[in-house]
Amino acid sequence: MNKRIIIVGGGFGGLNVAKALRNCPEIDITLLDRRNHHLFQPLLYQVAMAALSPADIAVPIRAILSGQRNISVLQAEVKQVDLQQQAVITDTDDSYPFDYLVLACGVEDSYFGHEEWEEYAPALKSIEQATEIRRRVLTAFEQAEQSKDPDRQKKMQTFVVIGGGPTGVELAGAIGEMSRYTLTRDFRNIDPGLTRIILVEAGPTILPSFSKPLRRQAVHDLERLGVQVWINSRVSRITAEEVEVGEERIRAATVLWAAGVRAPALNDNLPGEKDRMGRIKVEPDLSLPGYPNIFVIGDQAHALDPQDRPLPGIAPVALQQGRYLGRLLRAELQGKPRKPFRYWDKGQMATIGKSRAVTETHGLRLSGMLAWWAWLVVHIYYLSGFRNRILVLFQWAWSYLTYARGARLIIGKEWRRFSPKR
Amino acid sequence: MNKRIIIVGGGFGGLNVAKALRNCPEIDITLLDRRNHHLFQPLLYQVAMAALSPADIAVPIRAILSGQRNISVLQAEVKQVDLQQQAVITDTDDSYPFDYLVLACGVEDSYFGHEEWEEYAPALKSIEQATEIRRRVLTAFEQAEQSKDPDRQKKMQTFVVIGGGPTGVELAGAIGEMSRYTLTRDFRNIDPGLTRIILVEAGPTILPSFSKPLRRQAVHDLERLGVQVWINSRVSRITAEEVEVGEERIRAATVLWAAGVRAPALNDNLPGEKDRMGRIKVEPDLSLPGYPNIFVIGDQAHALDPQDRPLPGIAPVALQQGRYLGRLLRAELQGKPRKPFRYWDKGQMATIGKSRAVTETHGLRLSGMLAWWAWLVVHIYYLSGFRNRILVLFQWAWSYLTYARGARLIIGKEWRRFSPKR
Repeated sequence: MNKRIIIVGGGFGGLNVAKALRNCPEIDITLLDRRNHHLFQPLLYQVAMAALSPADIAVPIRAILSGQRNISVLQAEVKQVDLQQQAVITDTDDSYPFDYLVLACGVEDSYFGHEEWEEYAPALKSIEQATEIRRRVLTAFEQAEQSKDPDRQKKMQTFVVIGGGPTGVELAGAIGEMSRYTLTRDFRNIDPGLTRIILVEAGPTILPSFSKPLRRQAVHDLERLGVQVWINSRVSRITAEEVEVGEERIRAATVLWAAGVRAPALNDNLPGEKDRMGRIKVEPDLSLPGYPNIFVIGDQAHALDPQDRPLPGIAPVALQQGRYLGRLLRAELQGKPRKPFRYWDKGQMATIGKSRAVTETHGLRLSGMLAWWAWLVVHIYYLSGFRNRILVLFQWAWSYLTYARGARLIIGKEWRRFSPKR
Repeated sequence: MNKRIIIVGGGFGGLNVAKALRNCPEIDITLLDRRNHHLFQPLLYQVAMAALSPADIAVPIRAILSGQRNISVLQAEVKQVDLQQQAVITDTDDSYPFDYLVLACGVEDSYFGHEEWEEYAPALKSIEQATEIRRRVLTAFEQAEQSKDPDRQKKMQTFVVIGGGPTGVELAGAIGEMSRYTLTRDFRNIDPGLTRIILVEAGPTILPSFSKPLRRQAVHDLERLGVQVWINSRVSRITAEEVEVGEERIRAATVLWAAGVRAPALNDNLPGEKDRMGRIKVEPDLSLPGYPNIFVIGDQAHALDPQDRPLPGIAPVALQQGRYLGRLLRAELQGKPRKPFRYWDKGQMATIGKSRAVTETHGLRLSGMLAWWAWLVVHIYYLSGFRNRILVLFQWAWSYLTYARGARLIIGKEWRRFSPKR
């Protein structure tokens, strides 16, 4: 009988396991994901900031794997792993038995126990959240324009981004760019160029994984776009009206959360040691300790580099782990031994508005225009599909020339006109 | 003091009034719309059918009118016209006085008193509804694939489109094309090619405004895509499980409504005679009878052609009325007399899947490939903005070559992970 491999999650990790197993007719793969699409997370902030449309960076998982006959894709959420029965259980209580299991579910936002903040400060992990952020940001400008009350206008034109990692920096920079360049000529009553944008970071620096000169450059680039960086600033309260940072208070209509992530609840019921974020500490072959047929990869896992430092939660790690695991499984089915996973560090990058970025590769530091071109080439290269590459490139070129943002749509949450009778 | 012109609605009608008044510094225009975007309605069914993204056919109204200094755009919903005070009142109880008022609000869906059907049979007037329809159609295929119960699979793979006008025909044709061509290789458990699609029309024919040979051709084109046309079939009940058509019952998970529209509630409180759909019967200069400074244009109005037949509720009518009214107002401010509106009929068209359409212009009938090319050229020409033309053209070319649909995303309704505490 064919070996049954279950992959949970169609992100960079899960998808690359599946692809690496494409020429193995002797296995049956089932890929489960609660969404129907693979999402190119690194560009999600551009959907939130009205520069791209959701479909430009998301592709149906079953379309990507359409030609691969040994795989079936199901849209379902896995609730539990039954270690005894060697099966995964979905939210519809369906059970899928496996010979090998690959968990590649990624991480979720964490509000560090303040889940009531989510309502006022959406995070950025899904298309739904990106659309909600876009709606809030654009609506704030509309409401400022409508208002005749200067206090209300000021509140509407204040944006607080919490968290100074790459996502927070990219969001704050994009709001700066939108207010200073895109919106300038479109309003009569307010001046979008006077929008206040505050990037709040609890630690002593933004972009802590970058070297000091690049962090300085990033702060400078943010400031040129009207973003003020507040370090050593821990948020203590968020309401619909304001953000409390220690003793200070800022009235802001729009607050965005980019401050923390944690492993999904699925990890809680799995054995083995976990790190502070709930990620499972995996073996050198990425397997769950004690369960050589169960693997955890990508952001969901805590894996180590050769110097015993944990690998960062970024796309290249998940992608390389996926490819590695596909090769490992293929080799194992042919009776060959396992080799440990080795991460090949290609460096890191973050972008700050048009023509500005910082990149760092093995000590080679770039900033400004050159770094931005590097950022652009890398992101287009890794984007899935020729169609999406062309669409994204064209829209970037268009924005570059005109400063316009093509997806400036406020889309409501409700599609009905009549309320349903229940 | 400058004359104040209020335009309600940023569709084809309202936008063209505004544009026609661009070189008039002696007036102050305020354009109110409850949405921030102008929507190219004729292609909305392609958003619902995952061929295009919302932003490809929608543009912020304030971006379109950005360079026109005599206009300010506000996102607000008009609830009432105060004829005594000569002002419009918005849902936030703001009052905007006018010297001239242009009402161009379009129409809404009508369920003929069966508003409880909306929940089970969404209509297609807004981006929100298009996204909801896309979600339902794609989810139905996902759920059929997941199920092992043939009855459930059959229900999930049954689509009923109600209403045989251009929108219903285009929706049904697009579902047919998607199931027969786009999805064929992507599923393992079901055969999308056996999807049942039923187009239900209460009257004796689909596309009643077209001539008989073209209607026949349209039926034939629909059948080639697996759509069955049921004429003289009046829907009597819709539930989550099934559609009742007279004595007959069809179990269908997805039902779409394209059967009727009516004028917005705003019309109810305006004086003057209305037609069966609640549209106001306007004077030859498109003014409200008895109120020469208030105009009603586009779908919201019932205007007559020179043969005293009511003009159809289509984009070209609204567009020409908008341009006419802009010229009329400009002339009037210079003390010139009014001329009546004359509609220049350019004909009508509808498309049925790839390479198939029907068009009719002054007795010249086209169908098949040639009609489809005509349809394509006309729609690209009237689409707003160079950016969107390129994006739509590229995506059409891509779909044409690959049968793929680039926007096959199931996007949830909820962005939160944690439920809000109220």
